[in-house]
Amino acid sequence: MGRNTFGPQTLPCGIAEIAGRTGVVSRISDQVIDLMPIAAQRAPELVALLNHSSLNPLLSAGRSVWDALRGHLTEWVGDMAQLTPHLHPLASVKMLLPFAVGDYVDFYSSRQHAENVGRIFRPGQPMLPPNWLHMPIGYHGRSGTVVVSGTPVRRPSGQFRSGAGEPPVFGPCARLDFEAEVGFVIGADSAIGQPISTQEFADHVFGVVLVNDWSARDIQAWEYVPLGPFLGKSFATSISAWVTPLAALDNAWTSPPDREVEVLPYLGDGAGLNVTLEVAVNGVVISNPSLRDMYWTPAQQLAHMTINGASTRAGDLFASGTVSGPEPSQWGSLLELTWNGSNGSYLADDDEVTITATAPGPNGTTIDLGEVSGVVTS
Amino acid sequence: MGRNTFGPQTLPCGIAEIAGRTGVVSRISDQVIDLMPIAAQRAPELVALLNHSSLNPLLSAGRSVWDALRGHLTEWVGDMAQLTPHLHPLASVKMLLPFAVGDYVDFYSSRQHAENVGRIFRPGQPMLPPNWLHMPIGYHGRSGTVVVSGTPVRRPSGQFRSGAGEPPVFGPCARLDFEAEVGFVIGADSAIGQPISTQEFADHVFGVVLVNDWSARDIQAWEYVPLGPFLGKSFATSISAWVTPLAALDNAWTSPPDREVEVLPYLGDGAGLNVTLEVAVNGVVISNPSLRDMYWTPAQQLAHMTINGASTRAGDLFASGTVSGPEPSQWGSLLELTWNGSNGSYLADDDEVTITATAPGPNGTTIDLGEVSGVVTS
Repeated sequence: MGRNTFGPQTLPCGIAEIAGRTGVVSRISDQVIDLMPIAAQRAPELVALLNHSSLNPLLSAGRSVWDALRGHLTEWVGDMAQLTPHLHPLASVKMLLPFAVGDYVDFYSSRQHAENVGRIFRPGQPMLPPNWLHMPIGYHGRSGTVVVSGTPVRRPSGQFRSGAGEPPVFGPCARLDFEAEVGFVIGADSAIGQPISTQEFADHVFGVVLVNDWSARDIQAWEYVPLGPFLGKSFATSISAWVTPLAALDNAWTSPPDREVEVLPYLGDGAGLNVTLEVAVNGVVISNPSLRDMYWTPAQQLAHMTINGASTRAGDLFASGTVSGPEPSQWGSLLELTWNGSNGSYLADDDEVTITATAPGPNGTTIDLGEVSGVVTS
Repeated sequence: MGRNTFGPQTLPCGIAEIAGRTGVVSRISDQVIDLMPIAAQRAPELVALLNHSSLNPLLSAGRSVWDALRGHLTEWVGDMAQLTPHLHPLASVKMLLPFAVGDYVDFYSSRQHAENVGRIFRPGQPMLPPNWLHMPIGYHGRSGTVVVSGTPVRRPSGQFRSGAGEPPVFGPCARLDFEAEVGFVIGADSAIGQPISTQEFADHVFGVVLVNDWSARDIQAWEYVPLGPFLGKSFATSISAWVTPLAALDNAWTSPPDREVEVLPYLGDGAGLNVTLEVAVNGVVISNPSLRDMYWTPAQQLAHMTINGASTRAGDLFASGTVSGPEPSQWGSLLELTWNGSNGSYLADDDEVTITATAPGPNGTTIDLGEVSGVVTS
């Protein structure tokens, strides 16, 4: 990339093995910032939150602490003389899963994606299910198989059918897919019985990760009626090592698409995020979806997820669902890009899928959202 | 009950606030056994696993340690003189959620239940979906809202429709239901890419809890197509405070119902469990389902859940799905017992639902599986 990436307007958080310890780190350009020793000198009140193998204690601390840390970080990266002893080249550092995932919820909030799925699997019928325009549809995924970018992803085996009416067979998935998504990392806990309104979004969401919701389309197609996706998704979900703080995205908020039907008051308005993804397979860019095109906003997703009184915990993750825009060059899955394999192939062994993203930052700068990458193994 | 409950053949595990500490306890009759101080004297190698606010460290320790603890416990309860100082009346002890729940999976493995649901919601169509006889259908539920028996359960609000074609409205659930289930608590971790065969079941499952999978039928009916149940279930799932070790159920294994179609080899045979539930609303027994009637066995459920390479963690929980038998007096939900409200009512505020269960023990004894109870609040 020609521009200076990961500038001082980004300052993501992650967890790294660094200098013989595991702790919270940030990043400037291609240097990893070891935060604990700096905090020991300059913000000792934060040390107890940074000296951990996950971001969860920091996530639990809530918005005022997140903002205080970002304020310190901004100051520290402006003082290179003091910062330099705590910088480590990115290539020398092992990045780990940034947080222990509590509940993982995956939404289905791109209208274009939902309509494409309808056209592919239910031709001649309405493209959207009757509830789709009234609520952000979602389901719980498997949190124990959320892995960090760089983790190889093994092709799952399972049951599927060669066609309707055929008996199921068992074998390796033949229709392995990615889904390009953006995930939201919940911080401060909320109590059972206490819904989170759309206005309270920023008090509860620490930041954003990139998500590849790997999908075995043949397994999924056979299993998903009536209780939804299960083994077709639960084998692996990859997330970026870097969590972009919500505060870095202040300039990325945008209006969501017009509502086609009026939504119930608890779904309020919310705002969309102008985050543009780039999906590459084996280094070849095949799609550029934008989160800006999502029908349901992240604040609406969180409000819906908790309107029944469900509590949230630091480390809960909810993802946008496949991000697909109006143009074929903006579709976020091979299901759509190959029209279920009719004009292209699903993933082969050794294929590497990499999703990166950027968003507008302050004063014409760019915010980098890192990458989520994984190689398919047999 | 006329018989001597919670005899020395049962010896469940739980977590209690007791004597100013929180730790692992067991139970004999109506006395809670504080295990840590006994272990300090008689099995010091176990102390580090017992001095915790959850069973998870014990769960992680694996089958050989579980068996060793049970051996010690059996010896200790045979020596009342030594035991007595460590007994506390059940009524004086606060029981807590016994383990931190990792992933929570709920199955749908009672054929009678699935057929009843088909008859109620899809009259004139095949009672079972085409995949049902080929795999134990399941989905991920919300682990963060699993609560211990005795926790009040707040009636959820959400979207639902008064009829097909009507616009959705928002309000308190009008069709609040229970589902009587049995849950299996996973111990020793398994790695990603390593399926657990039906033969390995006992190495990975520590024990059994009773489960009430509270369900908002109106919310569920509107939301569940195409991605499955979400807010209709995620507001609360209650489990018993006592976890019955699998070893206590040695005499309860039984043959499952005949297979109607041959299953794929990875689903092997597995055995069913002869656990009889009793469901009472406000003290009136309304149903006696038996886990013995489930079409899919717990070993088949675990094998299916991991056949795609999904890993498991100590504290993962998977539940049977609603346990319903062939007779109406054995149906495990109000959806079935009232035929979706047509001949009876769903739950009202202040209703208390209590599920208890027993299983055959050695030498004609009975194993008690405790209870899961909850009162509906507005």
